[in-house]
Amino acid sequence: MTNERPVILVTNDDGIISPGIKALVEVASEFGQVVVVAPDSPQSGMGHAITLENVLRIERVHLFGDEILAYQCSGTPVDCVKIAINKIIKKKPDLCLSGINHGSNSSINVIYSGTLSAAMEASIDGVKAIGFSLLDYSFEADFQGAQHFARLIIQQILENGLPSGCLLNVNIPKLPVNDILGVKVCRQAMAQWEEEYDERIDPRGGTYYWLTGKFVNYDNGEDTDEWALANGYVSIVPVEYDLTNQHGIRFLNKHWNI
Amino acid sequence: MTNERPVILVTNDDGIISPGIKALVEVASEFGQVVVVAPDSPQSGMGHAITLENVLRIERVHLFGDEILAYQCSGTPVDCVKIAINKIIKKKPDLCLSGINHGSNSSINVIYSGTLSAAMEASIDGVKAIGFSLLDYSFEADFQGAQHFARLIIQQILENGLPSGCLLNVNIPKLPVNDILGVKVCRQAMAQWEEEYDERIDPRGGTYYWLTGKFVNYDNGEDTDEWALANGYVSIVPVEYDLTNQHGIRFLNKHWNI
Repeated sequence: MTNERPVILVTNDDGIISPGIKALVEVASEFGQVVVVAPDSPQSGMGHAITLENVLRIERVHLFGDEILAYQCSGTPVDCVKIAINKIIKKKPDLCLSGINHGSNSSINVIYSGTLSAAMEASIDGVKAIGFSLLDYSFEADFQGAQHFARLIIQQILENGLPSGCLLNVNIPKLPVNDILGVKVCRQAMAQWEEEYDERIDPRGGTYYWLTGKFVNYDNGEDTDEWALANGYVSIVPVEYDLTNQHGIRFLNKHWNI
Repeated sequence: MTNERPVILVTNDDGIISPGIKALVEVASEFGQVVVVAPDSPQSGMGHAITLENVLRIERVHLFGDEILAYQCSGTPVDCVKIAINKIIKKKPDLCLSGINHGSNSSINVIYSGTLSAAMEASIDGVKAIGFSLLDYSFEADFQGAQHFARLIIQQILENGLPSGCLLNVNIPKLPVNDILGVKVCRQAMAQWEEEYDERIDPRGGTYYWLTGKFVNYDNGEDTDEWALANGYVSIVPVEYDLTNQHGIRFLNKHWNI
């Protein structure tokens, strides 16, 4: 590393005015030159969506003080990372931080999460990346514990690096900072959402649905993110975007006749 | 399996009126009782997005003959699978088929693809699932080769199964059926999109952007989907939704001090 401070791209999926991104920008600023490119509206559950059928707009904002270059973007979290690298920073940042998400992105939620997909997009581009989430959906959430552990983890990634093809999914329990027992490196728990649809009738007599559901963890392992969070630890799951299932390759070669 | 015909859920991301889904419904009908739940508008690039901030609507359509129960849905491909299982079929289907996509979903495109995300959602729910894509973006594409190989692959999955936690990403080259050399079980090639943004000025003087880009394959392996497709084979990549990077776990435990 040269003497220059690292360039740190910060984004999220809750939108640029959420308290969670402000908390993350504060911590990131201690480590480098921060550039913020984040959605202009809430984008929770957008997964790895990109905007192909519509145009994108970006606009300079001054939400984080004069020192920090910040843009809101009309697109998804993944769009924010793409346009940040290609049009705003015009080079790859040294680090991409996404969050701090208002609510959990543990286990299977990594798949649905715009927060984690933004970090994954940076990782595909060869940029070290971390998604941070606090297990508190409230806009009034206390981010002090999350900030403390974000600081420790950012320090580690800058000092000790990360393998290529790997990003980090960090979840922080909703506990006072002194009650958090530490950090565990975990695997993704096997869990899923059991959908329920709330069926309603609109004023014109038409039927519509709201997606709701129940989170079901059917994984009893003590090496999972769900276990760590339930037991007072911050969870770090190293995540990959090579989705190849090696066991599936062996299975098909052995049992299929094609 | 009982004497009853398997229930096969068919969806896609190009929308319910695309020729690709019609081609897939034709093949699926040879194997079981087909239910179609597909987006009412194009949803390419929607990844694993779900609709949380808006309502969902479904409507019965009669596009595939009287024998086939079919609904269009206002949501994403993943919404279609969720609402199909929870509100329409009201049980888990025996198989979920997504596509046939108009255009490639090989290598890194698995991440951005609504087609594959729909299949992945079914897989998370414990349903055997396949995403099919033809390397031809045209609405006038010839689906005969794709139908031929879809038939072979559906037969294999019904007869010989698939490991749990695994779905299949099938891509078919744009070649006459007799010129396709066969089927290869592959790993996902390491490739990415290099973004370029097409910057334009709207009639009111505002700047907007269209996402464009160039696909770059930096993987020379002969065991990848890109290699298979470039050499005249159908590619099958077994795909997983457990995104844990085991090498990352070992790396952090060895090199980080937390």
